Amino acid sequence: MFLNKPKIIRISEVRPEPVANAKGTFIRVLFPPEETPTYSMRVFEIEPQGHIPAHKHPWEHEIFVLEGKVKIKVGNEEFILEPETAIYIPPNIVHEYWNIGESKAKFICTIPNKPSVKH
Amino acid sequence: MFLNKPKIIRISEVRPEPVANAKGTFIRVLFPPEETPTYSMRVFEIEPQGHIPAHKHPWEHEIFVLEGKVKIKVGNEEFILEPETAIYIPPNIVHEYWNIGESKAKFICTIPNKPSVKH
Repeated sequence: MFLNKPKIIRISEVRPEPVANAKGTFIRVLFPPEETPTYSMRVFEIEPQGHIPAHKHPWEHEIFVLEGKVKIKVGNEEFILEPETAIYIPPNIVHEYWNIGESKAKFICTIPNKPSVKH
Repeated sequence: MFLNKPKIIRISEVRPEPVANAKGTFIRVLFPPEETPTYSMRVFEIEPQGHIPAHKHPWEHEIFVLEGKVKIKVGNEEFILEPETAIYIPPNIVHEYWNIGESKAKFICTIPNKPSVKH
């Protein structure tokens, strides 16, 4: 089940947790899958020179950049994202992230609670 | 079906459309339901004194405030949201928005592509 009442949360109220296998990367889960019917909302912070290695999964991401400069490789394409810019990453495509700026990169990353396609 | 390749979009690339029945409110759809497997991401802008009237629907919202000061009423509770703050609004609860600041209010509003619960 999921929360049947509103939940308000500030980023600063959530302790950042290091992301396993990534370098200089922290996640704060604002709305976890246990609390939501359909998808989860998280905030990622990547330190300068930080990196999230290539990975894939059978669900999409919808990402919105809040701060900094992030390079994202999706399949064989590379994109540079800055604030006010969003990216949709389809299910089952390998993706990888780098902070290529000189300050912290910060973005909202949403993710479905269950696979969108078959493995 | 949905997009099987990445899509990158800047807010400024999307024409703002007035929101029907609302006052001083504009929507830009970054990732519409036709392009996405699970949920859609939109950006709302509400002018000072703008207002989105009370409404409800059988799906949730997950909202993240980017700019300004928004009052949101959910059921009988009222919340003031400022940047860096997010709100989860459960399905089937009446909600209503006001810009109570002196500048534009801007927030990301995500929404499932189909109902999360029965009507």
